[in-house]
Amino acid sequence: MMKNFVCQGFQASGIAAGIKKNNQADFGLIVSEVPAVVAGVFTRNRVQAAPVVLDRKRVQRRRCQAVVVNAGNANCCTGVQGMADAMETGRLVADALSIHEDSVLVASTGVIGQPMPMDRVRAAVPALVAALSGDGIPALAAAIMTTDLVPKMAVRHGQVEGTPYTVVAVAKGSGMIRPDMATMLCFVLTDASIGGQTLQAMLSGAVDRSFNRITVDGDTSTNDTVLLLANGLSGAAIDTPARIESFQQVLDALLLDLATMIVKDGEGATKLVTITVKGAATIAHARQVADTVASSNLVKTAFFGQDANWGRILAAAGRAGVFLDPDKIDVFFNDVQMVQGGIGCGAAAEAEATRVLKTPEFCVTLDLNMGSAGASVLTCDFSIEYVKINADYRS
Amino acid sequence: MMKNFVCQGFQASGIAAGIKKNNQADFGLIVSEVPAVVAGVFTRNRVQAAPVVLDRKRVQRRRCQAVVVNAGNANCCTGVQGMADAMETGRLVADALSIHEDSVLVASTGVIGQPMPMDRVRAAVPALVAALSGDGIPALAAAIMTTDLVPKMAVRHGQVEGTPYTVVAVAKGSGMIRPDMATMLCFVLTDASIGGQTLQAMLSGAVDRSFNRITVDGDTSTNDTVLLLANGLSGAAIDTPARIESFQQVLDALLLDLATMIVKDGEGATKLVTITVKGAATIAHARQVADTVASSNLVKTAFFGQDANWGRILAAAGRAGVFLDPDKIDVFFNDVQMVQGGIGCGAAAEAEATRVLKTPEFCVTLDLNMGSAGASVLTCDFSIEYVKINADYRS
Repeated sequence: MMKNFVCQGFQASGIAAGIKKNNQADFGLIVSEVPAVVAGVFTRNRVQAAPVVLDRKRVQRRRCQAVVVNAGNANCCTGVQGMADAMETGRLVADALSIHEDSVLVASTGVIGQPMPMDRVRAAVPALVAALSGDGIPALAAAIMTTDLVPKMAVRHGQVEGTPYTVVAVAKGSGMIRPDMATMLCFVLTDASIGGQTLQAMLSGAVDRSFNRITVDGDTSTNDTVLLLANGLSGAAIDTPARIESFQQVLDALLLDLATMIVKDGEGATKLVTITVKGAATIAHARQVADTVASSNLVKTAFFGQDANWGRILAAAGRAGVFLDPDKIDVFFNDVQMVQGGIGCGAAAEAEATRVLKTPEFCVTLDLNMGSAGASVLTCDFSIEYVKINADYRS
Repeated sequence: MMKNFVCQGFQASGIAAGIKKNNQADFGLIVSEVPAVVAGVFTRNRVQAAPVVLDRKRVQRRRCQAVVVNAGNANCCTGVQGMADAMETGRLVADALSIHEDSVLVASTGVIGQPMPMDRVRAAVPALVAALSGDGIPALAAAIMTTDLVPKMAVRHGQVEGTPYTVVAVAKGSGMIRPDMATMLCFVLTDASIGGQTLQAMLSGAVDRSFNRITVDGDTSTNDTVLLLANGLSGAAIDTPARIESFQQVLDALLLDLATMIVKDGEGATKLVTITVKGAATIAHARQVADTVASSNLVKTAFFGQDANWGRILAAAGRAGVFLDPDKIDVFFNDVQMVQGGIGCGAAAEAEATRVLKTPEFCVTLDLNMGSAGASVLTCDFSIEYVKINADYRS
């Protein structure tokens, strides 16, 4: 069943502008019929692309009517010219839509350090605007892909006292993924009516519980951007604690859907693995151990090899920088206990665990038996294909 | 020219005991004619193998006459039985040599979480002792290899007022390598005469300047052990500040030789790359940026692809957790400047840099232009072969 990614008052488009080398779609646009309230979360990398610097500033106004995005060129490490190019791209769109340029946000993803092909951008803007459509989200999702194999979209519905609202989200991301903003790009659109501060708080919380809990390769992007636009056209007002809580649940579920899609589509990934740490002294400890295990190349290559090499899992936990007692750790692959009190449970358990590892999705649980705090991180395996993709990325 | 790895008063041996699956050498022994002064540096991983726990305690006595080591089984996460096995292995050697068991140190490397095949260890000890020889270091070096492709040995000579001394070192290590003890195993033997506290201080310093400055895959071992034995038989006494300084230089050079060999032989490595950061505000900042760049999977796969993808280098520097100004960074591949003030130097520079990347050894320098501190880390590229090796390691 095709899902319907329509959200009242929003139009989107995606076309090929020649920014990528292969003539694929690479230029996208989102427009709201009326100015929307906007919230944004951006990369924490100190090296930031020009559009990230621009958007950070513009998002503070809390008003946005359009987002223009390209794949194939990150417009990062491009200096003064890069900022001029990002601003010009926004201005071209603003002029075509007859809106103020400050209400246009800009996002880019692709190769770092190359000048934006502005002649192509300029030439493509009219076609991009002409292609706008109420069901243009799939075209947009395709236009922002880089090494992604599948477009990533999700939709959820909610209601406020009988008045329904919709939240649609589209994302891209496959490599350079880890907690600390792991998304590359994500645009969330809703026709609910929400105040700026509330919107920002809800987005920040949802990102922390979704995109910041996934890892593909431990590298962070210079271009990570999550934007949430609320145009209010449904008339559903998110203006009481109960309504905020309800919307937050919808938003959390939506972003977790997309985060899961990103890890599933991780560069070269063949396995989707949830690393859960429980029995930690604090949530921060649990998270640090989960992150370290989820990012270990040795753990991830063992997943690829379908090898229940729990020794590597304990070794990764041991270097997480957290006090733990190795003799207390239990490890489970789904429900199969592999390690009890730091010692392997033997050949029968290993055979069962190997069966778990041969499935495409499973959970590895570490119980530190030090306390009652827990945390989870989504990760994937580390395959030969990952190396191939990244050795050849620019060629 | 075959080097001579003989050090007065030391004998060594290496044989096949059936601990590895493939009938290769896997059991080694070092014996000093007289009790030697000993210093040790061990893994900082919280999960530590039984022999590491045992050696940490025994090294405090500062006396050692023999080191017994096996490859193929890490004797880690093996609980009470693992400790009993490590102690028994030491006792078997002590009995065969008629020395006290407290003067025997034990080291293991290999798969984590499997019981030591003690029947094979027991059966092999007599042959191991019988094989001892003054020029047995190459046999020992072969016996401690796991995924290593080449044995790793080095020798240096010094003198104290005309009295010559020798320092011989042997190491293994190829995967699970990163700063914070990156060596897996290294044994250093000298016939110089050195007091215990001085010996420990010199070893700790040399390790910090060598094995702690290399990275292969960012994982740390549960078994890392560096031991330095000084038996004093040359009569060269290292007992004045000038002599200590001179010995330290010999030791530093020796361990740096071995550290370089380890990175060159990194699992799947095809490139040896020095990451140098200069112009940092502090040495700690320089080191943190160098470590982050040297450990980035995206940087390392680009090295494998011989792709001068400097954007990934800047992106890695940007997430190092150190304050830096992206617009000030210069990047060089050997002498070729690729980035000036955060911006690429163009196609001609890139073509020259690509030529550098096609060589097997090169240096990447980041000048942060924030201060005058610097640091270097040795790393290798990240290849398809690394994934293959680690997906199949236990099978």
